[in-house]
Amino acid sequence: MGRVTARRPIVRITADGERTRPDTVAVEEPFEIRVNGTPLTVTMRTPGDDVDLAHGFLLTEGVITSREDVLTARYCAGSDVDGMNTYNVLDIQLAPGVPGPDPSITRNFYTTSSCGVCGKAALDAVRLASRFPTDTDATISATTLATLPDQLRDRQKVFDTTGGIHAAGLFTTDGELLAVREDVGRHNAVDKVIGWALLADRVPLTGCVLMVSGRASFELAQKAAMAGIPILAAVSAPSSLAVDVATEQGMTLIGFLRGNSMNVYANAHRVTVDDPALAAHR
Amino acid sequence: MGRVTARRPIVRITADGERTRPDTVAVEEPFEIRVNGTPLTVTMRTPGDDVDLAHGFLLTEGVITSREDVLTARYCAGSDVDGMNTYNVLDIQLAPGVPGPDPSITRNFYTTSSCGVCGKAALDAVRLASRFPTDTDATISATTLATLPDQLRDRQKVFDTTGGIHAAGLFTTDGELLAVREDVGRHNAVDKVIGWALLADRVPLTGCVLMVSGRASFELAQKAAMAGIPILAAVSAPSSLAVDVATEQGMTLIGFLRGNSMNVYANAHRVTVDDPALAAHR
Repeated sequence: MGRVTARRPIVRITADGERTRPDTVAVEEPFEIRVNGTPLTVTMRTPGDDVDLAHGFLLTEGVITSREDVLTARYCAGSDVDGMNTYNVLDIQLAPGVPGPDPSITRNFYTTSSCGVCGKAALDAVRLASRFPTDTDATISATTLATLPDQLRDRQKVFDTTGGIHAAGLFTTDGELLAVREDVGRHNAVDKVIGWALLADRVPLTGCVLMVSGRASFELAQKAAMAGIPILAAVSAPSSLAVDVATEQGMTLIGFLRGNSMNVYANAHRVTVDDPALAAHR
Repeated sequence: MGRVTARRPIVRITADGERTRPDTVAVEEPFEIRVNGTPLTVTMRTPGDDVDLAHGFLLTEGVITSREDVLTARYCAGSDVDGMNTYNVLDIQLAPGVPGPDPSITRNFYTTSSCGVCGKAALDAVRLASRFPTDTDATISATTLATLPDQLRDRQKVFDTTGGIHAAGLFTTDGELLAVREDVGRHNAVDKVIGWALLADRVPLTGCVLMVSGRASFELAQKAAMAGIPILAAVSAPSSLAVDVATEQGMTLIGFLRGNSMNVYANAHRVTVDDPALAAHR
């Protein structure tokens, strides 16, 4: 057991009484991403795959578009009170010629439009920042989609021991699992799989599905769009703005993907339902 | 139906085939909080109770401690492309003598310590920022705790129609419900109930329980601590840092509160289990 999970003593209370025992929880620690030595953002994350996380964050915020845009990724030597490296600060050196991020990067994503802060401005910002064309060829059968939640669940190792951590999985439209990452922050789980894909030279992620264990927010839809992912599927509900950004970006958005049923909130043309196996699997 | 929910056309696919129908989703829109005219933060929130949200945010970030610290709260006149007020920008004018926030307020919460960015620094920051003494008198019976999830669930109106929104509820230690708020962001739901309490002159929230519909993160535990809440209960799991901040702040933290069972992760002395009704309710 590494830094991904931790043990804490708890009092377990049931109708049979109470008893003290150890329990396993998901580790949450702050993580600072620096670019060319300058602090950019701090996120609360589960340690592990930090280099992927930083790459995914910088890609989905529009700072980088390929692995060649990054020269080095190094943990800073910052140490805690015991003199140990915290491994909580990662400095990304951009390649020569790659412009650094706007310091107020995350806020600007919602406020670049003249209309002030509103959903429309947020949608405009994503459209302006997107660098990959929409993948118009991708299709996926409802039968394949129905296999994704169980495939994701089977790989949620940290969830098995803690019962409380988000997961994001990348699949091909044939239902082949490419990568799964878990994190206390669902945006971090998404950044980690997207960063993994960037480092594997798989971005833009044409022909791929991003599957998330919870709800689909604007932020997750934005990240999928920025990575060129044509299909986003969620176990739970999407928000209004997630639906809107998917609609505008030409991305297929599926929610409440459970068992053999699902709601397609945007660009349903990519989902094929002519497979008789769907009924057979019921 | 106001701006809290929205209708979107969907394709519903089941083993019986597909059909198009409208679906209700939770609205998500950006919300900018300004202090004395200067933008401080943007959060993606469900519209409604924005004044409460801003007050709760400023309290839990250590900017204000009472309703008297705020002179006025006004929506800015910023309009969208159709000339309509977006109602997405709220300006808080602080009372004379109340210092404005550090512009990098949220980042600083994790980095004020000399040890760099680490969990220890985050805990130190909360301890230094806390302005209310720990409520050492509060106790709650396990039987009362067991009633909270259903009470919360019964008041989740937006969840009923969307199936995807977080909730936070404030209760007395006798199990009396004080306020419930729903939001696509769980930190916003918490800020809204805490802001409500501030405006009702109930802060510090001695003798109260904060109940959240999902997991308990560091951020939620921090907010509870900053509002002087002695007991935080969650339907799902806490993170390691949520346990640590609760332990250090003398706050009772309960996770996996489901049916008649629960895990007490910190300061279990506040939970009494001598009530024979617990077994009777099994």
